[in-house]
Amino acid sequence: MTMDFDAIDTTIPRLGEASILSPVQKEKSRVHAHAQRFISDDERVIIDLDLNRLKKRIAEGREIPSFEKAGPREKIYFDPSKLRAALVTCGGLCPGLNDIIRAIVLELYYCYGVRDIRGVRYGLQGFISKYNLKYKELKPAVVANIYEMGGTILGASRGMQDIAEIVSCLDRDGIGILFMIGGDGTLRAANKIADTITEKGLKISVIGVPKTIDNDIHLVSRSFGFHTAVDIATGAIKAAHKEAEGYPNGIGLIKLMGRHSGFIAATATLAQQDVNFTLIPEVDFDLEGPKGFLASLEKRLEDRRHAVIVVAEGAGQRFFREEQEERDESGNVKPKDIGPYLKDKITSYFKAKDIPINLKYIDPSYIIRSLPANSNDNVYCSYLGRDAVHAGMAGKTKLIVSRWNEEFVYVPMCVAASAPTPKQVEPNGKLWFSVLEATGQGSLKNELQTAGA
Amino acid sequence: MTMDFDAIDTTIPRLGEASILSPVQKEKSRVHAHAQRFISDDERVIIDLDLNRLKKRIAEGREIPSFEKAGPREKIYFDPSKLRAALVTCGGLCPGLNDIIRAIVLELYYCYGVRDIRGVRYGLQGFISKYNLKYKELKPAVVANIYEMGGTILGASRGMQDIAEIVSCLDRDGIGILFMIGGDGTLRAANKIADTITEKGLKISVIGVPKTIDNDIHLVSRSFGFHTAVDIATGAIKAAHKEAEGYPNGIGLIKLMGRHSGFIAATATLAQQDVNFTLIPEVDFDLEGPKGFLASLEKRLEDRRHAVIVVAEGAGQRFFREEQEERDESGNVKPKDIGPYLKDKITSYFKAKDIPINLKYIDPSYIIRSLPANSNDNVYCSYLGRDAVHAGMAGKTKLIVSRWNEEFVYVPMCVAASAPTPKQVEPNGKLWFSVLEATGQGSLKNELQTAGA
Amino acid sequence: MTMDFDAIDTTIPRLGEASILSPVQKEKSRVHAHAQRFISDDERVIIDLDLNRLKKRIAEGREIPSFEKAGPREKIYFDPSKLRAALVTCGGLCPGLNDIIRAIVLELYYCYGVRDIRGVRYGLQGFISKYNLKYKELKPAVVANIYEMGGTILGASRGMQDIAEIVSCLDRDGIGILFMIGGDGTLRAANKIADTITEKGLKISVIGVPKTIDNDIHLVSRSFGFHTAVDIATGAIKAAHKEAEGYPNGIGLIKLMGRHSGFIAATATLAQQDVNFTLIPEVDFDLEGPKGFLASLEKRLEDRRHAVIVVAEGAGQRFFREEQEERDESGNVKPKDIGPYLKDKITSYFKAKDIPINLKYIDPSYIIRSLPANSNDNVYCSYLGRDAVHAGMAGKTKLIVSRWNEEFVYVPMCVAASAPTPKQVEPNGKLWFSVLEATGQGSLKNELQTAGA
Amino acid sequence: MTMDFDAIDTTIPRLGEASILSPVQKEKSRVHAHAQRFISDDERVIIDLDLNRLKKRIAEGREIPSFEKAGPREKIYFDPSKLRAALVTCGGLCPGLNDIIRAIVLELYYCYGVRDIRGVRYGLQGFISKYNLKYKELKPAVVANIYEMGGTILGASRGMQDIAEIVSCLDRDGIGILFMIGGDGTLRAANKIADTITEKGLKISVIGVPKTIDNDIHLVSRSFGFHTAVDIATGAIKAAHKEAEGYPNGIGLIKLMGRHSGFIAATATLAQQDVNFTLIPEVDFDLEGPKGFLASLEKRLEDRRHAVIVVAEGAGQRFFREEQEERDESGNVKPKDIGPYLKDKITSYFKAKDIPINLKYIDPSYIIRSLPANSNDNVYCSYLGRDAVHAGMAGKTKLIVSRWNEEFVYVPMCVAASAPTPKQVEPNGKLWFSVLEATGQGSLKNELQTAGA
Repeated sequence: MTMDFDAIDTTIPRLGEASILSPVQKEKSRVHAHAQRFISDDERVIIDLDLNRLKKRIAEGREIPSFEKAGPREKIYFDPSKLRAALVTCGGLCPGLNDIIRAIVLELYYCYGVRDIRGVRYGLQGFISKYNLKYKELKPAVVANIYEMGGTILGASRGMQDIAEIVSCLDRDGIGILFMIGGDGTLRAANKIADTITEKGLKISVIGVPKTIDNDIHLVSRSFGFHTAVDIATGAIKAAHKEAEGYPNGIGLIKLMGRHSGFIAATATLAQQDVNFTLIPEVDFDLEGPKGFLASLEKRLEDRRHAVIVVAEGAGQRFFREEQEERDESGNVKPKDIGPYLKDKITSYFKAKDIPINLKYIDPSYIIRSLPANSNDNVYCSYLGRDAVHAGMAGKTKLIVSRWNEEFVYVPMCVAASAPTPKQVEPNGKLWFSVLEATGQGSLKNELQTAGA
Repeated sequence: MTMDFDAIDTTIPRLGEASILSPVQKEKSRVHAHAQRFISDDERVIIDLDLNRLKKRIAEGREIPSFEKAGPREKIYFDPSKLRAALVTCGGLCPGLNDIIRAIVLELYYCYGVRDIRGVRYGLQGFISKYNLKYKELKPAVVANIYEMGGTILGASRGMQDIAEIVSCLDRDGIGILFMIGGDGTLRAANKIADTITEKGLKISVIGVPKTIDNDIHLVSRSFGFHTAVDIATGAIKAAHKEAEGYPNGIGLIKLMGRHSGFIAATATLAQQDVNFTLIPEVDFDLEGPKGFLASLEKRLEDRRHAVIVVAEGAGQRFFREEQEERDESGNVKPKDIGPYLKDKITSYFKAKDIPINLKYIDPSYIIRSLPANSNDNVYCSYLGRDAVHAGMAGKTKLIVSRWNEEFVYVPMCVAASAPTPKQVEPNGKLWFSVLEATGQGSLKNELQTAGA
Repeated sequence: MTMDFDAIDTTIPRLGEASILSPVQKEKSRVHAHAQRFISDDERVIIDLDLNRLKKRIAEGREIPSFEKAGPREKIYFDPSKLRAALVTCGGLCPGLNDIIRAIVLELYYCYGVRDIRGVRYGLQGFISKYNLKYKELKPAVVANIYEMGGTILGASRGMQDIAEIVSCLDRDGIGILFMIGGDGTLRAANKIADTITEKGLKISVIGVPKTIDNDIHLVSRSFGFHTAVDIATGAIKAAHKEAEGYPNGIGLIKLMGRHSGFIAATATLAQQDVNFTLIPEVDFDLEGPKGFLASLEKRLEDRRHAVIVVAEGAGQRFFREEQEERDESGNVKPKDIGPYLKDKITSYFKAKDIPINLKYIDPSYIIRSLPANSNDNVYCSYLGRDAVHAGMAGKTKLIVSRWNEEFVYVPMCVAASAPTPKQVEPNGKLWFSVLEATGQGSLKNELQTAGA
Repeated sequence: MTMDFDAIDTTIPRLGEASILSPVQKEKSRVHAHAQRFISDDERVIIDLDLNRLKKRIAEGREIPSFEKAGPREKIYFDPSKLRAALVTCGGLCPGLNDIIRAIVLELYYCYGVRDIRGVRYGLQGFISKYNLKYKELKPAVVANIYEMGGTILGASRGMQDIAEIVSCLDRDGIGILFMIGGDGTLRAANKIADTITEKGLKISVIGVPKTIDNDIHLVSRSFGFHTAVDIATGAIKAAHKEAEGYPNGIGLIKLMGRHSGFIAATATLAQQDVNFTLIPEVDFDLEGPKGFLASLEKRLEDRRHAVIVVAEGAGQRFFREEQEERDESGNVKPKDIGPYLKDKITSYFKAKDIPINLKYIDPSYIIRSLPANSNDNVYCSYLGRDAVHAGMAGKTKLIVSRWNEEFVYVPMCVAASAPTPKQVEPNGKLWFSVLEATGQGSLKNELQTAGA
């Protein structure tokens, strides 16, 4: 935990005073007199659980950092009978997108009585007139079974669009709440959209649901789809293991998702326990040299005749010469492809030594991204979607729905969007230490560092 | 959260001073100079995250309740070269048992260098001479692939055995650490075994890994196997839904696990979203009467021609006449079987009204219990097993390994074992409220309660 | 193979001369000049493959029994632009029903240009006015994704309805082809409907697609859904095996589908290879006595401490006293439930001997029946559906679509419907012999029979 | 069906007279007096089922081609107590290899009483002294659970080894039966090994079990692992479909196995029904031109905004310039990689037209090959393995075990090995015609051929 929480303002902005009695109230009184405990805005969840740091804070008279608890509020800001809400899904596919869409639509419709819900087609392109994309009207019947399907029924697209045109579109079409489901780039766009909305004095709530299959967004302890991704990645590792065992000097090389963070690679390594080398962006390694990766791999083959290697797509980027950086449409730096690079390096290393190997390279990326969520993610997404709606209806804005310390909370969008780097695997932490134990891979460095990561 | 944390002593007992340098240390220095941050015994995790309650505590000068953080200690108590460790699995099957066994054995063997590890056969029976059960020697090769299998390679059994004979056996056979994997009853037995050990002045560490597919142990926010159980339970609900839709007035009735707590039933309801009625032990309901379950079911069939009902096995126990209680071998009160009872009630209700129905009853219990863990539980079990070993090697005793607020912690065994009732779904909480939204089932009570549950 | 093929007339009846050029023709000429080889009515497939029996036939100058080959005909009988077709699904759920519906609708719509296709709701009830059930209009968009779902989108029901009213309904509503998807009882009903149509001089084709998850229809070598059923049944056996291994004297008892035929039980036994006793309707066994089932089970427990038993629901019916027979709504004799019966017998047998056992009883029936088809059955159903359409469009009637010797063929409905008993596992055949090898169960009879089954 | 059966000698060679009473006999008499009907060598199965062709044959007085039926013989050639048997697995991984190994070992051990069974490591390399590979001793305990694992416990390797050295090894080590599980190349090697055995006057039976995930071996109607491959391939297609739908002008491109034959591509297309273009080696297509693939793809995108393409790895090989052929170690011509080739062609086509597309390329090959068999293939492999043993024990040699017209048969090795080309999808047949219907792809040719394929 390296963020400076003292510097963070965790106050959630709002459009105005929430003065309408929530219809959720009436609904619930039919159920149990005691069933509904609305969450009040001052219920907060402590961010940092460490007792010693807490005691120090108290002793020093500093604030105790906390997040606002998510959930239904007793008073709401928007009149459901007049509200028009919109949803948009941006960036790459991720298991659970349809679950989020479904939860938002059902909660708006059944619990708040909102009848005008619009799906924006193909990400931010859907706001831009030149693409000529109509809204998709979203009713319960449309979303009823979509959680069984992967992908997103709205479509998505990568890349930024003109912020002014987006806000004009929202204004012109009378959107009251915009739910934006997307990754880092999308949250930055959402932040700018919300700023422009404020500048123009509009009353439009912008609510983010952070999407990152890599689990690399700060202040989000678990991103939806991540469990599903690990589930399926383990299957690919199992396959690679069988291929490796199946031949003399068999090597299974699996590239997994993770541009900046090795969470999927590290976690899948722990699930499968067949992996001998796990390479992630957060932990540097040498290829050459007596303790480097290639020599270690050779030693492993000598000992056991087969090896399984998991590499996160963002690992080892320093090996690529300093060519000019390529960026994708969303403005993310495109990593060079470490998978084929490693494959070539391994092949030529053993060729030079005249050692025959059988290398199989597996890249399951798109198979994973396009799956439906597993039941664990189904449940998770249904909570995220509902809490997004509660926030929007209460007139809150510029926030993302997050999970923190086993509670659902609201985190200001600017906090999550402003982090200079994505969330990463802590090289000194429990996860990476467990990976080192599971693989027995050692440092893969010729000279050990003595300072922090 | 209704436990009185002020009354809880969360101090972990220990056998004596840990004075041997952990071999984990040497191992790690080969890896990264910075890789291993041992956990010190005074690192603690706050139990209650609520900011307002915390401020009140601070204002009142009360202690801040916390748990000791799990993980490797710099100094250990047992000499690995001389230690003999034993594992036992007790009670019903649960996905992940073999993962726990595997993680404990591999951690003892590879990280601490323990070579003498024994599996106790068929639960506590394995300690009792009359059953004539030999230990199963546990080596890495024996446990390497067992995580792909359901069940437990050691076997299990229900029911208590003579505590004195168990302790004599441990003493006679020179066991230094006993890992006990089991449910409520097992933890109570473990507590008694540890007390007898103390009385006799023996130096045997007793470490519990709490097992409950129902997720109903206090101070354990998630029990292993629970995610897997929900995964599979959702499949059964999907089947029931199709059977219900397939016929006029089709009814799918699924009984799920949950003697005292409806966590599986409630969570699977959220995953599947096809359920119309969820009945759990924590929330009372009426069968008869204008707002009771049967009338509500009739109304549902009128509206939609089919219905899906999920019932936890411990729901509605008050409907059974006060016959003498039956207890199973572990001393748990055996619930009467609500599944067939409901099936009969529904059948005769509609027969009396001359309304033809098509009811299908599904009880997937044993299929779920005997599955291998999914990858999410694989990872979870590997952490639990390793932290169990770290505790035992450090000479800690009478504790269980738990997950709390996204951290692994050590909880005194007596605290978990002494709770008068199992952990339950909070009728005023987010989970049950979400179930009510998902099902739309209403209160199912003719007269609403006005006070708390 | 015990049917008397000499006595079978395998000629397919037809409504009249097919004189319209098939639109499939035009379609195909756009594709490959050579792509479409229409099947002519005189292409036939030999029924009995045995060379020696064939030579005997030739020597004796007898006919060589054969079936008409299924597939598109060059000339069709119905004018697609005027045709109204109807589909009905009857009896219990079975994986693949939606695949069949989908294939029929898409073939009618896209390949023949039929635009008026109606789904009959809830089986034969859908024809009867008192049930007040509207047709469901079937268009490609309605059926596009249904193969991902279990069950049937049309609903089904058991039991016979008035034949005259059904035919009046068909006549009044101008149905030209009726596709009936159902089991033995349904095919008998179909046969009667077709007879009444003939008597009344109507021009309505009745095409059957035989449905039986038990794989027990004569002259159908594989029924759709059977492979899926075996797939899932093996999962249940695996669960039972783990439960059995998990406890001292553990017994896993699984009841599988199969009223009259043990195909699922026998085949799943071969897939899983963990089964010790397989009991099917076709092969008698004793419970009591020195070589009976219970004594054999005791011996197995002595040897190995656990046992897995698979019992088909129709096995051992002779153990039930000659109470009056119950019949279900479809007129099938309801078997007494052998599962709980065996469970009780085993329990009391070992109780009397004071041998503690741990018996787990698993009945996965409804979970299996309501699943979507696996990909193998997806493909199979798509062939069955298309060949059903080809037959109907060509004006053929009173036939079922079947698979025989790896070819799709048309079998006269009366032949399949008239068989006195269902198709059964041959006690002298390869399947049962393989089961005996896999289980090692022996005869389970105190006195061996010396003649045929 | 284009083979000339008149030219085929289907007689199975044998090592000598089988004169020992099969122990299977004694075993079975314990079971049912009637249980075991041994198969006699003159039981034969007709190869060609077409009635008209049969009648023509009879009229012309030609032989009726047939295969010898597989199964246990009453007399055997080898003395089980003295026999040493060996198994070897060659070539690429395929689901079911471990099932075959398991079935052979268990049948030899339990049914015939053979105690000396050896696994040859890493394919044919295991016979060659320079590789220094010991046999793996195969006992029931070793193989009991291997059907749950993908790959092969023996390992495999590609490529030919010195035949003389292999036969010397067999002779020196006293092997009586060699079971060779492998593809085309392996069967050719087996044939040469058997010829050399004959030349040297040795009494060693060589039994082949044909392995080809592509299902492309003549006279084998279904190869093991094929159903499993289709199962998993459909998952990849589903993923591609979701990726395609997820973006504007989304294209999912999946490469599936099939060097010479498109069976997997075609069958998976029928299972999934989401595919718009299926490209296989057997059916030529144009890339460029008004009716070529690229223009058709453009039209599809205009109509529906997304497209799914399945390409078998051997499709479109003519597009590669006539560079010198590369061959892999087994001597097979290595196809150029059509997947990336198509990806590039599509990308540049639309780039030239300035139409933005979103193409995702998926190659699930190794994930499929290394899976465990599904239950359907479990059963199938258990039959193949047992019938391989029956043949070997009876002293038959130079044969493969095959499935033909729903019967298991013995096919002379030279017949299967001598076919000039692999088995292929018939462009005029039912499978390809169904693919054309399912995809609606048309001919993809600018000029239609008028003659046969």
